[in-house]
Amino acid sequence: MGRALTITDVDDLAVGAWIIGTGGGGSPHLNHLNVRQVMSGGRTFEMIDPTELEDDARVAVVSTMGAPLVMQERLQDSRDVARAVEIMADHIGAPFDAVMATEIGGSNAFQPLMAAAHLDIPVVDADAMGRAYPEAQMTSFAIAGLQPWPLSLVDPRGIEAVISHVPTWKWMERASRVLTVETGSMAATCKAPRTGAEVKRWSVANSMSLAIGLGATVRRARAEHADPVEAVADAAGGRRLFGGKVTDVERRTTGGFLRGMAVVEGLDGWSGQRLELDFQNEWLVARLDGQPIATVPHLICLLDAESGTAIGTETARYGQRASLLAIPAPDLFRSEAGLRYVGPRAMGYDLDPVDPLS
Amino acid sequence: MGRALTITDVDDLAVGAWIIGTGGGGSPHLNHLNVRQVMSGGRTFEMIDPTELEDDARVAVVSTMGAPLVMQERLQDSRDVARAVEIMADHIGAPFDAVMATEIGGSNAFQPLMAAAHLDIPVVDADAMGRAYPEAQMTSFAIAGLQPWPLSLVDPRGIEAVISHVPTWKWMERASRVLTVETGSMAATCKAPRTGAEVKRWSVANSMSLAIGLGATVRRARAEHADPVEAVADAAGGRRLFGGKVTDVERRTTGGFLRGMAVVEGLDGWSGQRLELDFQNEWLVARLDGQPIATVPHLICLLDAESGTAIGTETARYGQRASLLAIPAPDLFRSEAGLRYVGPRAMGYDLDPVDPLS
Repeated sequence: MGRALTITDVDDLAVGAWIIGTGGGGSPHLNHLNVRQVMSGGRTFEMIDPTELEDDARVAVVSTMGAPLVMQERLQDSRDVARAVEIMADHIGAPFDAVMATEIGGSNAFQPLMAAAHLDIPVVDADAMGRAYPEAQMTSFAIAGLQPWPLSLVDPRGIEAVISHVPTWKWMERASRVLTVETGSMAATCKAPRTGAEVKRWSVANSMSLAIGLGATVRRARAEHADPVEAVADAAGGRRLFGGKVTDVERRTTGGFLRGMAVVEGLDGWSGQRLELDFQNEWLVARLDGQPIATVPHLICLLDAESGTAIGTETARYGQRASLLAIPAPDLFRSEAGLRYVGPRAMGYDLDPVDPLS
Repeated sequence: MGRALTITDVDDLAVGAWIIGTGGGGSPHLNHLNVRQVMSGGRTFEMIDPTELEDDARVAVVSTMGAPLVMQERLQDSRDVARAVEIMADHIGAPFDAVMATEIGGSNAFQPLMAAAHLDIPVVDADAMGRAYPEAQMTSFAIAGLQPWPLSLVDPRGIEAVISHVPTWKWMERASRVLTVETGSMAATCKAPRTGAEVKRWSVANSMSLAIGLGATVRRARAEHADPVEAVADAAGGRRLFGGKVTDVERRTTGGFLRGMAVVEGLDGWSGQRLELDFQNEWLVARLDGQPIATVPHLICLLDAESGTAIGTETARYGQRASLLAIPAPDLFRSEAGLRYVGPRAMGYDLDPVDPLS
C-alpha cells in the first residue's frame, strides 16, 4: 500500500525537488501552488513504491518540455498534463495503472501529481533521472536501451500530437523539441509507457521520497537555526564546494533551452576565487578559477546560503549569496553507458566527468 | 467505373503536373520513374471520378512536404507514402476506400499513385489545390472550413508522428512543417481524411485528368512540330505573357521552403523588357519592368520555349529560353474566402491579386 501525501509533503517536495533540479527542471513554485490548491479542495494523492507495481502494470511517464524561463512566466494547466496521458492511453488502447515523473528535479516533480489530479491513479515514488537533465534522452530508460516511442505532446493552444516511432532516443528528443519550440517552448508530454517490471529494474527508485526528505531537512534546519546547506549536504551525501556572491549571469533562450553562464565571486574562505557555472537549463559544469571541480552527471546545486533554497538557472541574479553543493550521481549515470547520455561530452564539453567528492 | 492509367498517361502526367505545379510541387522526374517501374512490374492503377465516391467513403489525402531542392536530391521510397496512409488508417481505426493528392502540381501528383502501389485502392481524379501552393493550409478543404486534423507524417529514417489536434489549419502547417524541417525538409504526409461527400463538394475535380491532358497536348505539339507553349495556353485557357532568357536566379532553402527570385530578360517581341519572378517553392508574383502582371492564386507557369517542359523554381538556371504562361485559378480560390488562404497577402505581399487575363 502506498502512502497519502500530506500538504507538508508537497511543500517539502517543492523545496527538495528544486535543489536536485540542479538549477533546472523549472521552478516548482507555480506547479506547487497548483497542487496545493487541488489538495485544499480535498483531493488526495497516493504515492506508491516501485516494488508495489505488478510486472505488467502500465506506467505513464510525464514531464513538461521547454525552457524554464518560459515556464516561469506561463502558468500551466494541470488538465494539459492529464490530457497528454489520456492521448497516450488512447494511442496504446489501454488505461494506465500509475503515473511517474520523467525527472524529479524542479517543477517536473509535480507533473505526475498534476496528471493524477484528473486521473484516479497513484503516483510512483521514482523518476528516470534522479535530478533534472536538459534533454529527453538523458534518462535511465534510454541508458537501459528501452523503447523510446511513442510520445504524446499537448500544447495549451490545443495542439496535440503523438510521435509514434523514432529510430533513436535522440530523435525523439529532436522531434518533440521542435514541436515544443514551435508551440512556444512549453508543452506537456507523456513519454514512452513503461511496464511495472521496467520501472522496478531501471527507474531511479524513491527519488520523490528523497526530494521530500531534502525539503524536510531544509525546513527543520531553518526551524533549528542550523545551516541548511550543511544539513542538505549531510542528508544527500554531498559536499559544499564554494560560497560567495553572484556577480554576473548571461542567459539566452535558444532552441527551446535556457543557456548561459553564471559567475560567483568567493566570500569568506573562498575570497578572491571565482566560480563559473555553465548551464543548459541545468548547471552542467562548475569551474573554480578555470579548473573544473564538478561536472554532469553529478548534481551541481546552487543554494541560497542563508535559506537553503535552490537558485535556478532562470532565477540566479546579481547579489545573491550562494553556496555550491555537489552530490554524486547514481551509479547507472556514471557507468560507461550512462556517460554516453549524460556525461560532459554528451552535453558538448570536451571534458572527462569530474566527481566532486573524489 | 474508373479507368486504368496507361504508361502514356503517367508520362503525360509527369509533363502536365509539372506545368501546373507553377514552378513548385517538386520536379516529378524521380517519382515518375518510380511509378513507371512499378507499372513495368505489372501493377495497374485505377483512376476514379470523384462522383464515383460514396458519400461516406473514406479518402486519404497525401502529399510530401518539404523543399523542392531537397526532393530533387533525395529519391523517395513509395513505401513511406503508403506508410503515412497506414498510420492514418490505424489512427482513425478504419481502412481507406481511395487516395487522392493534396496538390496535383509537380511531384505531388504522383503521391497517390505511390501510395496505391502498396494499397489496393483507387486514385481519385481530383486534388485540393488545382496546382501547387507552398503551404499545407492553402487548400480548397481549408477554404471550405473543413476539419484540419489529424495528419500523419513519415520520414525515411523511421520517424513517424500523428498530429491529432490543432486549433487552426495554419497551426497544422506550422506543426507539420517544423517536423519536416527537423527531419531533413522532406516527409511523406497523409492529411486529414475526407469523406466522399466532402471530396465531391470541395475538391478540385478532374485535376489529374487535366494534368494528363496538358501533358498529352505538349506531346502532340512536339510530334507535330507545333508551338507547345501556345498549345498548352489554348488547352488550359491561359495566355503567354512573356518570352526571353533566364539571366539570374537567387535561391535559398530556408524554413523548409525554397525561396528566391528569377530574372528573365526579354527576347523577340519582349526585347528590352525584364521579368522578375518571386518564389516560395512556387512562382508567386510576376513583375514586368516592376509592374505586377500576374500573382497568386493564378497559375504562373514558366516553360521551356522550345519543348514546353516546365521550369521549376529549383531547376531554373542561366541561359534557359523561357516563356511565361499564365492560367486563371478556379473560382473558389479567387473568392474572398479563397484569397485569405492563397491570395498575394496570404503569401506576405502587399498586393491585390492580378488576373493575367484581365
